[in-house]
Amino acid sequence: MPILIPILQGLRLFDSLPADKLAEVSVTMNERRVERREVVIKRGETDAGLGFLIEGRLQTVNFTLDGREVGIDFVEDGDFFGELSVIDGQPAPEYIIAVAPSRIAFLERERARELMFSTPRGAAAVAERLAARMRRAAGHRALLALPSSFQRVCAQLTLLTQRDGSGQTVITMAPTHQEIAIMVNTSRETVTRTLQFLQGLKVLARDGNSLLVHQPETLQEAADGKVAPTK
Amino acid sequence: MPILIPILQGLRLFDSLPADKLAEVSVTMNERRVERREVVIKRGETDAGLGFLIEGRLQTVNFTLDGREVGIDFVEDGDFFGELSVIDGQPAPEYIIAVAPSRIAFLERERARELMFSTPRGAAAVAERLAARMRRAAGHRALLALPSSFQRVCAQLTLLTQRDGSGQTVITMAPTHQEIAIMVNTSRETVTRTLQFLQGLKVLARDGNSLLVHQPETLQEAADGKVAPTK
Repeated sequence: MPILIPILQGLRLFDSLPADKLAEVSVTMNERRVERREVVIKRGETDAGLGFLIEGRLQTVNFTLDGREVGIDFVEDGDFFGELSVIDGQPAPEYIIAVAPSRIAFLERERARELMFSTPRGAAAVAERLAARMRRAAGHRALLALPSSFQRVCAQLTLLTQRDGSGQTVITMAPTHQEIAIMVNTSRETVTRTLQFLQGLKVLARDGNSLLVHQPETLQEAADGKVAPTK
Repeated sequence: MPILIPILQGLRLFDSLPADKLAEVSVTMNERRVERREVVIKRGETDAGLGFLIEGRLQTVNFTLDGREVGIDFVEDGDFFGELSVIDGQPAPEYIIAVAPSRIAFLERERARELMFSTPRGAAAVAERLAARMRRAAGHRALLALPSSFQRVCAQLTLLTQRDGSGQTVITMAPTHQEIAIMVNTSRETVTRTLQFLQGLKVLARDGNSLLVHQPETLQEAADGKVAPTK
């Protein structure tokens, strides 16, 4: 089933494309549903094409040189993914897995390249997306170099904190303890202990799928190593 | 002094530009010489423009959240740098410093954007460069997550190893012990001990500014934790 044009218009790479181009693209793309934990792109694949996340949430995951899983970044609604292989023809450097039930679609490589590079606006959009990923990667790299797991968990929570419409600082759709453990290269138990410690200090409170961050300054101090649980 | 056109033609972003465009660009760029350890772009700068390395070697360096210096990546002859701020107008995420006496030049932001995005070939070149940096960042991230400093040093040496014209595996212009220590977040002493261990096993041998890698498989095994010095 070709993908519907209003859905395409909700995807960032297509939002400035004229209607006739959109119609051309729509017939070549098929929507697919994936379950939580399903692999969307395997590491090493070269010809997956350019992926689009219509709805849901994906995470890029890799393995350290000695085999442990490390979460890298999330893909949010409307984002594209798998762009590295589309750009350079080399194998995907990481796995992309669904962390929520998701709707995805792929566009074949040559057509994707045409869309990405044929207009200055498309080219700038692709460069901006890559730049945003580079910046998140830089933040995450600084975090992984922290010696204490407690600090790494707090620093990761700081990176995930956003301000919502009403001015509340919040981590929406908070990752599970296991997912945070994977992101900062520690054990699930350490994440659980750290969250209990922060909840005890009323730095954080759970609210359904979200974490309310009542004291973002204290969370930052904990990431900086200025606040720590006594052993 | 405007930069000479043959020098511009040696820079990757300009190698497909017609002569009249090159002439236009050349009068707006000034060559500058920088000394070893001189800062070329400060973290937080937004308006440095797009930098070009005509000759020499630069390194991107950042500080961990608790203040230690970590080397990220090198910029080699003919490369451009500082592209993130040119793309998104946000502050530079990292310092760029000269690790050898270098010749550099900057192109003002708006003109750089025009060159980067106005042709499909320029846009693809920029995307390829960003993709290459993302891939190196992914490799470096996996490395930093390794628990043992010995493994991190060996893994970093593996990433730096290339095959030269005569088929010899070699690390050309090898970073100093201190530079490697910064790159893998350990002490200079640990790097020195690791290199002595590897030289003792004849895995590596120094050759002027280069390190000859006589046993690349053993180096990889050491990075994987399968070969280690006895305590």
